[in-house]
Amino acid sequence: MAELPDKRTAFIDWYLAVVENAHLTDKRYPVKGMNVWMPYGFRARRNLAAVLIREIEATGSEALEFPALIPATEFAKEKEHIKGFDAQVYWVTKGGLSELDIPLALRPTSETAMYPVFALWVRSHRDLPLNVYQIVNVFRYETKTTRPFLRLREIHFFEEHTCQANEEHATARVRSNLGAFARMAAAFALPYLASRLPEGDKFPGACYSIAFDIPVADARTLQIGTVHHYRENFSRPYGIRFEAPDGSQQFVHQTTFGLSERLLGAILAVHGDAKGAVFPSSVAPYQVVVIPIPGTDAGDAPLRAATDIVERLRRHGVRVHLDGGDERPGAKYYRWELGGVPLRLEVGRREAETHSATAVDRLGRKTQVALDRLEQEVEERLAEFDRALSERAQATFLASFSVARSIDELSGSTKVRVVAWCGTEECGHRIETGIDGALLGTPEGALPLPVGDAGPCIACGRSENVRWAIAGRPL
Amino acid sequence: MAELPDKRTAFIDWYLAVVENAHLTDKRYPVKGMNVWMPYGFRARRNLAAVLIREIEATGSEALEFPALIPATEFAKEKEHIKGFDAQVYWVTKGGLSELDIPLALRPTSETAMYPVFALWVRSHRDLPLNVYQIVNVFRYETKTTRPFLRLREIHFFEEHTCQANEEHATARVRSNLGAFARMAAAFALPYLASRLPEGDKFPGACYSIAFDIPVADARTLQIGTVHHYRENFSRPYGIRFEAPDGSQQFVHQTTFGLSERLLGAILAVHGDAKGAVFPSSVAPYQVVVIPIPGTDAGDAPLRAATDIVERLRRHGVRVHLDGGDERPGAKYYRWELGGVPLRLEVGRREAETHSATAVDRLGRKTQVALDRLEQEVEERLAEFDRALSERAQATFLASFSVARSIDELSGSTKVRVVAWCGTEECGHRIETGIDGALLGTPEGALPLPVGDAGPCIACGRSENVRWAIAGRPL
Repeated sequence: MAELPDKRTAFIDWYLAVVENAHLTDKRYPVKGMNVWMPYGFRARRNLAAVLIREIEATGSEALEFPALIPATEFAKEKEHIKGFDAQVYWVTKGGLSELDIPLALRPTSETAMYPVFALWVRSHRDLPLNVYQIVNVFRYETKTTRPFLRLREIHFFEEHTCQANEEHATARVRSNLGAFARMAAAFALPYLASRLPEGDKFPGACYSIAFDIPVADARTLQIGTVHHYRENFSRPYGIRFEAPDGSQQFVHQTTFGLSERLLGAILAVHGDAKGAVFPSSVAPYQVVVIPIPGTDAGDAPLRAATDIVERLRRHGVRVHLDGGDERPGAKYYRWELGGVPLRLEVGRREAETHSATAVDRLGRKTQVALDRLEQEVEERLAEFDRALSERAQATFLASFSVARSIDELSGSTKVRVVAWCGTEECGHRIETGIDGALLGTPEGALPLPVGDAGPCIACGRSENVRWAIAGRPL
Repeated sequence: MAELPDKRTAFIDWYLAVVENAHLTDKRYPVKGMNVWMPYGFRARRNLAAVLIREIEATGSEALEFPALIPATEFAKEKEHIKGFDAQVYWVTKGGLSELDIPLALRPTSETAMYPVFALWVRSHRDLPLNVYQIVNVFRYETKTTRPFLRLREIHFFEEHTCQANEEHATARVRSNLGAFARMAAAFALPYLASRLPEGDKFPGACYSIAFDIPVADARTLQIGTVHHYRENFSRPYGIRFEAPDGSQQFVHQTTFGLSERLLGAILAVHGDAKGAVFPSSVAPYQVVVIPIPGTDAGDAPLRAATDIVERLRRHGVRVHLDGGDERPGAKYYRWELGGVPLRLEVGRREAETHSATAVDRLGRKTQVALDRLEQEVEERLAEFDRALSERAQATFLASFSVARSIDELSGSTKVRVVAWCGTEECGHRIETGIDGALLGTPEGALPLPVGDAGPCIACGRSENVRWAIAGRPL
């Protein structure tokens, strides 16, 4: 197989080659932006979803599922929202051989599917909070170039929707979501930045939006999730109200939290290298691959030892795969490195005789594993691999930012820039033009590099209301 | 809450009341035949899917996922298939503000999505067998009355698609599917009958179809799954061929295996009773509910004991729920019986003092559980409950069939009828008219009641080619 393109100088080519050669998705499906999840890629998606489910359910959210089709009449109730999605909606206009009386929108997101029903479910303060989520396919008629996992027309979407008694509770839910996302990102070894989006970029219908971004390469960034505070923007048009303890009728305050397979793209983009994908053990389709090394006089001892190892690890709950095919070992190493498997165990004649295995992790570190401590040692190697992966990603993350002290400094930037900004739309545009990209927003919490207070706005020089903001080139 | 309608005399009313009152799905969503999966119902669906995944993956099938939209051009390639689905397809004709050049079918099933891509994947005999499945939403513009789980416009579908080297291997895959379904049905405590469908009823494009049916009540039946053998009917139009070991190019033989949430409807229909749903422990949203019984001088001992029980069972992998609310215990018993929870544990003052719990299973059997053996005893109670549920269902199943010796006997039948049939379409129609229902097909394997060889056809009296067939009234 040909070498992969260079990740640093030809990032997108490298990315597409990894997705294709690792058999994650097949983009030859005859609809643009809709890809086939191949078995290997689907395993990664399933493991990723398991992390999202674990972390969101730990915060008291419950899974449910709404239909994929939304009547045009419901879809149009919130004006900002419909305006924001107008150009992106797929419409079902025909059922069987006849035209539908009311066209049905293929959900681009589920506010307008859920909220008429929430209005039926929420009657009293005792029905609150309502914290629910679903993992479903959503559809957006994307006109830009589509990319596997990153920009699609059929998106595999995680969306939490909540109803709270008041703005304060809704703000607390936003905080809870930020905490849940921090735990998810830690499981994926992904450092990220949470920023409050500029007014003009917030979600259609939101009162404010917080986005999670990661730097990819060359000042490029990837938005990998969002949390929105809707206040009463949807509950008023959809009539979601409740009887408060004092007997008054009040509208709920709502929040949402959205993620997608873009997280998988981020994992590839951040951790991948010249040999291909690198998966953290939480997401890896297989955490361990076991490869018997036949020798001239080894007989079937390596295969028998490898089979025994696989059975023991599987019983222990490790996702393990035996590659017992008749290719030469080098071809197998190549394939599973490309596929991003965290740990490879090799068993040849020597290992079979000494009751051991040679472990090589995806960062290239080789050690011996004693089979009488197999399960514990594999657990330790995987934990150590995840730790090292996370540290490497953290170092790259920190090196991806730098402060820009003037508009001129932004042009041709190879780093994501931290800039002082007065908050006005006008200066925001000047900064975006300067970097030929976008203002990602103002960071929530600590900046990824040591800076003092923000100086005067780099666009207008004014010192009122100045805050640090992040500028980059969204992928 | 009002009493449920009578299951025997008003089956559909009873069924709808159980689905609604147990909060499984909400049918108030504003599109006919598309319901909202509420959190409690979604838990049952997730547990049911876990059984399907476990059993199909044990036979070497791998999960993947194809897009939900199929270009009209691909959809039309197999003539019988398109003819069979013509009246049922939802069409997406608009993307954003513009008409699409090629309309997109919202998949009613995925043959026409998958097979053009299978043609790219399958090149050599080494690529076979290809055994893959997906669990996805599919859409059918159903014109009959829709019913939760039973007849819907958005269906949550399990579909396995396989490619085999020849007809014999495909037949072996059909057999493997029958075995997998037997294990799934056992997990759901559902007795069923597998029948080969009459020619006119087979799946559009299939060479033959085997359906799984259950008797519901009053000669009514429910088809709960199908397996199809396509031979080369799809591989020829879609060009799925491979190089055989002898160098020749051959078309694959294909099979499919389909299931849906109708299984959940079947579980409700078969096991449910006057108090509501009854779930086998494999599917139950909660397997155990723990209810502390406050007493005048019990203090918080019952709640503390109940909390401890819940934590221990959860650690042990039991799906358990603590109902610690301030309603009276009777209201809680009522709710969880309606919700079909297999086992209730009550902890009052006496139980807290004697380090025990009172266990009541959903079949009403009361026993004491010693807390020092809590985990094992709960496991035993659940296994015993499943066994009793299965035996009860088996007895009802066997009593649901009877032989009919003449066409006249069919009219007004309250049982599913076993009839001698010569296999001709004409006699098939006479039998269907006689029972005011349908011929379900000819059983694969043993009949559910002792009969000898089939006598002359009950419609025409001829004795050639006569076989036993099943006639009922599909729900």
